Amino acid sequence: MDATEPVLVPLRAGDPRALARAISWVENGHPAARPLMAALWPTLGRAEVIGLTGAPGAGKSTLTDQLARALRKEGRKVGILAVDPTSPYTGGAILGDRIRMARASEDDGIFIRSMATRGALGGLARATQDAIDLLDAAGFDTVIVETVGVGQDEVDVVACVQTCCVVLVPGLGDGVQAIKAGIMEVADLFILNKADRDGADLVEQEVEGLKSLGPIGLDPGWDPPVKRTIASTGEGVAELITAIRAHGAWLRQGDGLARKAKARARLRLEALLAEEAARRAKAKAGDAKLEALIADIAARKLDPYAAVDELLR
Amino acid sequence: MDATEPVLVPLRAGDPRALARAISWVENGHPAARPLMAALWPTLGRAEVIGLTGAPGAGKSTLTDQLARALRKEGRKVGILAVDPTSPYTGGAILGDRIRMARASEDDGIFIRSMATRGALGGLARATQDAIDLLDAAGFDTVIVETVGVGQDEVDVVACVQTCCVVLVPGLGDGVQAIKAGIMEVADLFILNKADRDGADLVEQEVEGLKSLGPIGLDPGWDPPVKRTIASTGEGVAELITAIRAHGAWLRQGDGLARKAKARARLRLEALLAEEAARRAKAKAGDAKLEALIADIAARKLDPYAAVDELLR
Repeated sequence: MDATEPVLVPLRAGDPRALARAISWVENGHPAARPLMAALWPTLGRAEVIGLTGAPGAGKSTLTDQLARALRKEGRKVGILAVDPTSPYTGGAILGDRIRMARASEDDGIFIRSMATRGALGGLARATQDAIDLLDAAGFDTVIVETVGVGQDEVDVVACVQTCCVVLVPGLGDGVQAIKAGIMEVADLFILNKADRDGADLVEQEVEGLKSLGPIGLDPGWDPPVKRTIASTGEGVAELITAIRAHGAWLRQGDGLARKAKARARLRLEALLAEEAARRAKAKAGDAKLEALIADIAARKLDPYAAVDELLR
Repeated sequence: MDATEPVLVPLRAGDPRALARAISWVENGHPAARPLMAALWPTLGRAEVIGLTGAPGAGKSTLTDQLARALRKEGRKVGILAVDPTSPYTGGAILGDRIRMARASEDDGIFIRSMATRGALGGLARATQDAIDLLDAAGFDTVIVETVGVGQDEVDVVACVQTCCVVLVPGLGDGVQAIKAGIMEVADLFILNKADRDGADLVEQEVEGLKSLGPIGLDPGWDPPVKRTIASTGEGVAELITAIRAHGAWLRQGDGLARKAKARARLRLEALLAEEAARRAKAKAGDAKLEALIADIAARKLDPYAAVDELLR
């Protein structure tokens, strides 16, 4: 427990530097990540966790911004995790557009973090789940996870948060784009953003049409509502928060929360198992052996299945 | 070898049903996938493999269509793997837009397949690599892999094909969207599609500006060109094919092909190792044990790291 002590105490007190350091640990697979998560584990699960997913250009970041602002006015501490590689939080770090970062850093009640998308297969989903818990442990009342709604890892990340919002937008190439992307099935709530644009009614009709074909979302007893917003002006954001809270209340009434917790536990176990099993097999084999196997596969002397057999023997 | 025999022989003869069955095997982790890949392995690596990646709405599918058409006129057999969950091939299967499928099925020299994006973490990257090899084994001269340029798995899939094309488009929300998404680094070639639209010059300037900051792409000796196309009319497609061939020739001159093969071998080993190590650990534990661990994690009695330790002990 020694290695985690200098982070554990300030993290629980909500210190942003300790939090940033802890998130880096879970992202990089630092040896201290494991005892830290174990120490925090029994007391977690207090934070409200909201997922926002949708195609690039749907206005997720502006919505996140507006949601965070409204939640701050309620006095809640808000943590934001941007898993979207097209997000301005992420892009900003590369291109110098650090305005949002700067504004957020003036307020201790907001914490923004971009999750790195490069790394081990499946590692992103696991690291993001850990980061949600770290924000929870640091006393953040609401955690907003923003992901682009394509890519298996990204969908997995939001599929099991408390309330998963799918952001749709009129006229973005094709009204049914989000539907095609297979993210409909994880929606607890639809946000029809940029609702003042032409085609908003059409998008809503398409969603209703799809809902009429059969139940949508992971909870068969819940009918995901469609909420209209104009994120740029903040219109509809208060009503959106009311709808998110209504879903939360519905979850708490039945066994919804338990079901969500189980789905999240399953994802975490799967992701961490794949990551850790591969890590151990590689550590056991050693770099030289691994490079030799890769060279043999590339030279077509050995097929990848046989190489993996050799590693796992 | 008995189980693979009924597929192996017709697959090598280019039979589309055998090919479809074999791809399903690698997608689903069928027990016959492994001996099939092993039997084919030594003779693979003949096909030209082109990756197309870019944001939804960039026109990747229309470009793929035009490329396939031009390559067919050269007499080449063309295999298309659509990994993009927003692709009309994929969406079509759900929404009934099967026009392309129908047209393609009239021509034995074209094979189109959507790769399922749901499944085990990392499994998509592995299955797509296997499917490329199956098309190669079935005598397809060119394989086009179309993926949406966000999400780790999707980027991984195209990062190590022979020629990776990043499709950009003017005015799609933000000119630098693709740049932000971190797919610049895997580009061997940029396609500026919908080049007749306003803002094409701006996108090209942005790419050139980024290139001036340092080398782009996985091959430091190669300067990725920008090729303009209008996929809807076919304009620029012939020049694009010439540029793809020029990159192929450059790869063959030096050690480029060997480096690409090694990158691909590494990805395959990593993906298959994670998948297979997790599969074996779960099989060893059994469903009852696994479900008990998940329930304990959900109830916060056990943290996921400790659960994985127990599975891997």
